[in-house]
Amino acid sequence: MAGDGTWTVYLSGEIHSDWRERIAAGVREAGLPVELVAPVTDHAASDDVGAEILGEEEEGFWRDHKGAGVNAVRTQTLLRRADIVVVRFGEQYKQWNAAFEAGYAAAIGIPVITLHDPELTHPLKEVDRAAMAVAETPEQVVEILRYATS
Amino acid sequence: MAGDGTWTVYLSGEIHSDWRERIAAGVREAGLPVELVAPVTDHAASDDVGAEILGEEEEGFWRDHKGAGVNAVRTQTLLRRADIVVVRFGEQYKQWNAAFEAGYAAAIGIPVITLHDPELTHPLKEVDRAAMAVAETPEQVVEILRYATS
Amino acid sequence: MAGDGTWTVYLSGEIHSDWRERIAAGVREAGLPVELVAPVTDHAASDDVGAEILGEEEEGFWRDHKGAGVNAVRTQTLLRRADIVVVRFGEQYKQWNAAFEAGYAAAIGIPVITLHDPELTHPLKEVDRAAMAVAETPEQVVEILRYATS
Amino acid sequence: MAGDGTWTVYLSGEIHSDWRERIAAGVREAGLPVELVAPVTDHAASDDVGAEILGEEEEGFWRDHKGAGVNAVRTQTLLRRADIVVVRFGEQYKQWNAAFEAGYAAAIGIPVITLHDPELTHPLKEVDRAAMAVAETPEQVVEILRYATS
Amino acid sequence: MAGDGTWTVYLSGEIHSDWRERIAAGVREAGLPVELVAPVTDHAASDDVGAEILGEEEEGFWRDHKGAGVNAVRTQTLLRRADIVVVRFGEQYKQWNAAFEAGYAAAIGIPVITLHDPELTHPLKEVDRAAMAVAETPEQVVEILRYATS
Amino acid sequence: MAGDGTWTVYLSGEIHSDWRERIAAGVREAGLPVELVAPVTDHAASDDVGAEILGEEEEGFWRDHKGAGVNAVRTQTLLRRADIVVVRFGEQYKQWNAAFEAGYAAAIGIPVITLHDPELTHPLKEVDRAAMAVAETPEQVVEILRYATS
Amino acid sequence: MAGDGTWTVYLSGEIHSDWRERIAAGVREAGLPVELVAPVTDHAASDDVGAEILGEEEEGFWRDHKGAGVNAVRTQTLLRRADIVVVRFGEQYKQWNAAFEAGYAAAIGIPVITLHDPELTHPLKEVDRAAMAVAETPEQVVEILRYATS
Amino acid sequence: MAGDGTWTVYLSGEIHSDWRERIAAGVREAGLPVELVAPVTDHAASDDVGAEILGEEEEGFWRDHKGAGVNAVRTQTLLRRADIVVVRFGEQYKQWNAAFEAGYAAAIGIPVITLHDPELTHPLKEVDRAAMAVAETPEQVVEILRYATS
Repeated sequence: MAGDGTWTVYLSGEIHSDWRERIAAGVREAGLPVELVAPVTDHAASDDVGAEILGEEEEGFWRDHKGAGVNAVRTQTLLRRADIVVVRFGEQYKQWNAAFEAGYAAAIGIPVITLHDPELTHPLKEVDRAAMAVAETPEQVVEILRYATS
Repeated sequence: MAGDGTWTVYLSGEIHSDWRERIAAGVREAGLPVELVAPVTDHAASDDVGAEILGEEEEGFWRDHKGAGVNAVRTQTLLRRADIVVVRFGEQYKQWNAAFEAGYAAAIGIPVITLHDPELTHPLKEVDRAAMAVAETPEQVVEILRYATS
Repeated sequence: MAGDGTWTVYLSGEIHSDWRERIAAGVREAGLPVELVAPVTDHAASDDVGAEILGEEEEGFWRDHKGAGVNAVRTQTLLRRADIVVVRFGEQYKQWNAAFEAGYAAAIGIPVITLHDPELTHPLKEVDRAAMAVAETPEQVVEILRYATS
Repeated sequence: MAGDGTWTVYLSGEIHSDWRERIAAGVREAGLPVELVAPVTDHAASDDVGAEILGEEEEGFWRDHKGAGVNAVRTQTLLRRADIVVVRFGEQYKQWNAAFEAGYAAAIGIPVITLHDPELTHPLKEVDRAAMAVAETPEQVVEILRYATS
Repeated sequence: MAGDGTWTVYLSGEIHSDWRERIAAGVREAGLPVELVAPVTDHAASDDVGAEILGEEEEGFWRDHKGAGVNAVRTQTLLRRADIVVVRFGEQYKQWNAAFEAGYAAAIGIPVITLHDPELTHPLKEVDRAAMAVAETPEQVVEILRYATS
Repeated sequence: MAGDGTWTVYLSGEIHSDWRERIAAGVREAGLPVELVAPVTDHAASDDVGAEILGEEEEGFWRDHKGAGVNAVRTQTLLRRADIVVVRFGEQYKQWNAAFEAGYAAAIGIPVITLHDPELTHPLKEVDRAAMAVAETPEQVVEILRYATS
Repeated sequence: MAGDGTWTVYLSGEIHSDWRERIAAGVREAGLPVELVAPVTDHAASDDVGAEILGEEEEGFWRDHKGAGVNAVRTQTLLRRADIVVVRFGEQYKQWNAAFEAGYAAAIGIPVITLHDPELTHPLKEVDRAAMAVAETPEQVVEILRYATS
Repeated sequence: MAGDGTWTVYLSGEIHSDWRERIAAGVREAGLPVELVAPVTDHAASDDVGAEILGEEEEGFWRDHKGAGVNAVRTQTLLRRADIVVVRFGEQYKQWNAAFEAGYAAAIGIPVITLHDPELTHPLKEVDRAAMAVAETPEQVVEILRYATS
């Protein structure tokens, strides 16, 4: 927590649904002492940022590598400074970065909350096992944050 | 300490007596630069929070497991951010969570103050050994906080 | 693990039943690459060691304090060097030292296995939540060790 | 490294192809001072271990949770003791546990080598960014181990 | 980040060009929530500070030793408190202190951005490998900071 | 540093001369962004605090033990939160607590400045070796703080 | 402990009495699985080693500084690798290095045993408070080691 | 140290002179319990290893990046496992990797010995300040190792 009692919550994972907005709305309505932080969620901006700032690359691997590095400057810091990490897994895409960040957070002792549909239970069992709570809806996450920060 | 010199003190343990209120009153009266934080001390709310937010469970074990996880989101963060941890042991209940949190705090180098009646001295000897001070009354804890933050 | 692939397993907690012997027998029979370590389990020896080595004390509190310190020289080292910590809770006594050691182990990232009867589920929910496995019999612990070290 | 100069290499991830055997064969043929360790790779055994040792569960979520816990006793220890972690991603399955372990290893400073087909480059960019080397074949991993331990 | 969302960025390395001023101008113009900190960049003041405050030395080695110590009081603290470390390598001088600080930052998990001309790519390959981004101009660094703190 | 750029400096050691006042005066006059913290420097209060708050002891050893514990609640926190630790050794007394705190600070990576007369150079050589600067006067310490925080 | 169950015990402090020999004799007679390590205890060799290996110095301060550095190469490693640290304080000399090493050991979680005459109780109260046991004779230390390693 | 008392010494830095051979010869002649480890010192092999194992790259930057990654698998492990790190700076080349490794070692508490000609004193002052000893010849390093491991 910051000195004024604000909790920093890092919202990791899926960027193609409105789960962050729903958590933000819930936090706002409930007036929780929570600051939400997140990776850049504009997919194209995130993919292109390395090439755009540091120069275009011919090979896709290095283009991705550059972009992932610039994103990591942001996410590694947000992750290490967070009080709680919420990790969202959706139906689409591999989302290995979400699982990677869950592992990183678990290793340094930051409580993890996962957020996903029950259909993903089996493949997420190791990640869920390391989490303190497994939610199915953003509203449940808001309730956990309300309880944690009450 | 926060940047403004406020000390964060986590009050762990017993939730069935008024020891937290007495410490809070003492801190307030003495005008100490201390922010007191604590687990949720409403016993029923604490026991039920997992089932209430994340869905009911048939088996008691998993119901407890869920609830303990949600509580840990709160307590693990408060514990890791605390400057001092006060751990209260009362006459009733097993209070293994209090001893667990004392062990956690000791392992990461946060000073621990235990608070309990002399009758509990023998079974608490290992926990007391790891503590910096062993108090019998909340007022003694307030005096220690006054001294520590003077 | 030691360089030769041996796993060190610290058996924390209850000293009034034969659970350690049963685990030891199981480990031996299965030929597991496991070295079992433990606190001194002779209750009187453990209680008296401080006074016996360092001099008698009049007050019970300081007698216990001395004894707990000498025991901690042993247990703190065994705990920090362990690959796995098994924590046993029995029906009798407060066993706060067991919960303390579970908290210490969890804080420094060592996997914890708890071992207790189902009757203790509710008061142990926070400790069980931090554990990787909750066993009811020593034989289950042996099976977990067999699986972990296979 | 162990005291005798042996490197411990943890092989994380995919369990449905022969990549571990190919690395093992390469290590053996080259006579490298490398001890290979891994999760239990028998898929059914791994999925069922929680229920088999600790008792069956009706709900899939808790069955998985139990199993993931027992597996974590093994993998968390192997991961923390490893000198190098190799993480394999295959075409099938979500493999979030592999990414989770990569994140865990990166957080505690253990060098990571990823192993996957070029088709997975884009979704793995964050994991690859945190890795020291990105291999496409087990034979390349063997070459890296040969170089690292020469 | 500080409690108010400000990122602290430590600008390590070369002191003979205007790269810090250009980053500061860019941060100011873009209104980024970034506090820039740096070693003392007055070369003579930095070299002489040990002798001036603590007394002159006859031998150059000890004169430098004293000065490096006083500078380290400043830089070691700034480095450990930083969210991001930017390390600039110029054409002149050995700049081993810059590489030393990059190694220190990498070891404690702070994201590093290097800043240098392409001519230095080969000798800087190990440092660049540990960095999250490799920039050629101060303006690129500003863009990365803008992205990271957006 | 706190979020507002204030440096916290812990003044450890000798309590029988006015060195802390002289540093405080220098910091004030120079308007440095420095918050000075310290152990309780009223010798009698410090010696008696354990007995006064927690109850008198017959044996001197335990009286001291209690007092040292209460003082440690304060000093251990101040030490761990400090940006810089200044350790003063005077002519009188053993001052082993000062050397103990220097060792503690060095172990957790906080820069240490020692302050003592040249006569103490030889017995303090190991402590001085671990320090970043060795001052002879409080005014030199102020100058180092001015330089470090400029 | 080493893989073969040997405990490494670092004997810090006084070099002018035979306490190390008495502990070594006791360990040998009891056949304890203990490896004793220590600083170089030849006073002159220890004082002169910097100048002898790295070149003479005119100023005593730098001569000591050099020597303390070379000794630290040895002691810092032994200290960090030890399972237990015994710190001896005698009647003579300042022995600040002993207190420094006690602080270092305490900070990184290694159990400390202090060894000194009762006359030194008051000035050593802070160091003793951080220790797990306070012995008056080498034979008591041997008894503690026997108990710890039994 | 390994369990058998062997010290692992990592020889970082310059690869174009025979300093490692001279240290190895000295260690061998003196029969020291020291295992010397090092980066791959065949310059071409080291530069090419990324491209040779993982595939050629067109751009020099990425070719170097790949090679530096594979080398880091080796060096990061050797560095983290070392008891002592010796860092050699020669007259030629930038040797920023040597300074980087010195910074890394210092940050994680491993004692550093630097080895260089007096001509390099000024540009190496920050690195030397963080070292425990500054040697000019390999023979001096051998003497320090002899003393440290005696």
